[in-house]
Amino acid sequence: MLENKNIPKTPIASLGEFALIEALTKSFEIKDSSTQFGIGDDAAVVQHGKDETLISTDLLIEGVHFDLSYTPLKHLGYKAVMVNLSDIFAMNAVATQITVSIAVSNRFSMEALEELYLGIYLACKNYKVDLVGGDTTSSSKGLIISVTAIGKANKDEITFRNGAKKGNLVIVTGDLGGAYMGLQVLEREKAVFQVNPQSQPDLSEYSYCIERQLKPESRIDIKALLKDFGIKPTAMIDISDGLSSEILHLSKASKLGCQIYEDKIPIDPEVVKICEEFKINNTTAAINGGEDYELLFTIEQSDFEKVKGHPDLSIIGHMTDEASGYNMITGLGQQIELSAQGWNGIENKEGN
Amino acid sequence: MLENKNIPKTPIASLGEFALIEALTKSFEIKDSSTQFGIGDDAAVVQHGKDETLISTDLLIEGVHFDLSYTPLKHLGYKAVMVNLSDIFAMNAVATQITVSIAVSNRFSMEALEELYLGIYLACKNYKVDLVGGDTTSSSKGLIISVTAIGKANKDEITFRNGAKKGNLVIVTGDLGGAYMGLQVLEREKAVFQVNPQSQPDLSEYSYCIERQLKPESRIDIKALLKDFGIKPTAMIDISDGLSSEILHLSKASKLGCQIYEDKIPIDPEVVKICEEFKINNTTAAINGGEDYELLFTIEQSDFEKVKGHPDLSIIGHMTDEASGYNMITGLGQQIELSAQGWNGIENKEGN
Repeated sequence: MLENKNIPKTPIASLGEFALIEALTKSFEIKDSSTQFGIGDDAAVVQHGKDETLISTDLLIEGVHFDLSYTPLKHLGYKAVMVNLSDIFAMNAVATQITVSIAVSNRFSMEALEELYLGIYLACKNYKVDLVGGDTTSSSKGLIISVTAIGKANKDEITFRNGAKKGNLVIVTGDLGGAYMGLQVLEREKAVFQVNPQSQPDLSEYSYCIERQLKPESRIDIKALLKDFGIKPTAMIDISDGLSSEILHLSKASKLGCQIYEDKIPIDPEVVKICEEFKINNTTAAINGGEDYELLFTIEQSDFEKVKGHPDLSIIGHMTDEASGYNMITGLGQQIELSAQGWNGIENKEGN
Repeated sequence: MLENKNIPKTPIASLGEFALIEALTKSFEIKDSSTQFGIGDDAAVVQHGKDETLISTDLLIEGVHFDLSYTPLKHLGYKAVMVNLSDIFAMNAVATQITVSIAVSNRFSMEALEELYLGIYLACKNYKVDLVGGDTTSSSKGLIISVTAIGKANKDEITFRNGAKKGNLVIVTGDLGGAYMGLQVLEREKAVFQVNPQSQPDLSEYSYCIERQLKPESRIDIKALLKDFGIKPTAMIDISDGLSSEILHLSKASKLGCQIYEDKIPIDPEVVKICEEFKINNTTAAINGGEDYELLFTIEQSDFEKVKGHPDLSIIGHMTDEASGYNMITGLGQQIELSAQGWNGIENKEGN
């Protein structure tokens, strides 16, 4: 999928590190007015005036966070940026700059890295953030990507995880479970391909979920949407490790319990269809799947009318007192306790 | 050196990621007044008021940048921070925050990571920077450390690489070549140990160089020193890849040539002694060795009297026009061209 062995490739070692950084980043233009100086010195210089500066970082490891046998490098570059911007948006802030460090083994060619940076470039362009620095080195095995995102926000707008109040409504953006089911489809096709390399699968009926997995977008729009509505969310977190895990974080940080309703959880019809095919419960996919990069936030009950019926916002429950615990009411009216199954220890998930 | 097999170790997977981060970072206190919110949400919040914000990042890979057979994890943690702070100091700025992301394979125990973070903690404490975020994940092989440093500076104080003027004096701090010769000693002892694991080497006569390699300090003091002298450096860079490589960067960025004098390059007597033992030319060690994390900067000639004779500052040459090239005058009066030998392509050195 990634390599056409017939085209001669440029070994990275033939360039040298600084020529490599120059080659990979020359098409990146500085766009944000707060970026005073980007790549090319010991450090980048950023001026956020009277705004607060926000910083978030993620480390992505080949074989742990991504599988290059079905992940195009361009999409991987894009996704690596999304994962970080999502954290900045989850603070109700504006993303302004990123740094990208990569370590690569010698099996990667210059053309492969250019693909990766093309994805990073597209993400920067689409989300209006500047690439301002990074580091490029060799790895003894595989590809490692470390992204740090910088953002800004007015002090009063920043939304932490710990601000939810009892009775607040719990809202999620978009829909959930798509990225996880996309991963299931891709893993199945990989297994098929290993048995029969001539297989030419038609994946068009899985296109939404595959795109959610390979090329997720992060919710740059929610800050402005809520501002238009005159809503200041009381707490917010992004959904990287699954709704169940994230609502536990938000609840615990706010020293509250929560109650959500299974039939309120937004799930795309394609997710439902693929879940049937894979014999996976679609609520399980939605609450434990992770990697959807939607936002989970809480608002005052008095804001209910403002968000009601909005196609991008689903009210899925409310915050309770801490003693009530973390619960989901199923479609059959049963109460089950939420646990952080979406995150299986350090072995397979990134942090926030 | 690192492991006493008799003490039971805590598997990392037994904790889970968030408990792991909590356990590793609970002793870190927020000290810098610009740190509004550190670890524990999607992003850190920093307020730099009317100062500029500086950002620098480095990625360190086991087997590429460090060898755990002779690098105590505590020192590695300390050094990982130093490498990044050095970049902030090289902008004539004050370091204020760091983020640290790590990926570890399952051969590391909780106790090993605590050692690593103890070094990070000491670096934060000694240099008065706050740890404000990061990511912790698994790796398929080895230990990976990604550090991003944030700094601040008044706009007028920031010193780029490109500001040197023809005739400016070239100055280095401290002395050079120690870290490289320390590495030679450690590599030799590793080879001896592999042949005879019972060997108990006496490394006391190499202690300065070994400390330069394993536990370098970065030059937090130079900004204040120059300010006291009433000097604004015209250009500055840190010496991570060797003097020769760095002076080429500074010269090229400033569109100038340079001339330095071999007998002005500061070299510690221990470096000279170890160089004799290893039959390495000590100038070669000093200009190509790297990892000394000293600063290289240029000042106006009129500032000569202010720095003359200062024990921490060596005037090693001056900037020339671009056509004159990049030259060193040897002790015998020969002129030789400087090249970036200190940096051997992407295979063995980190970026800035």
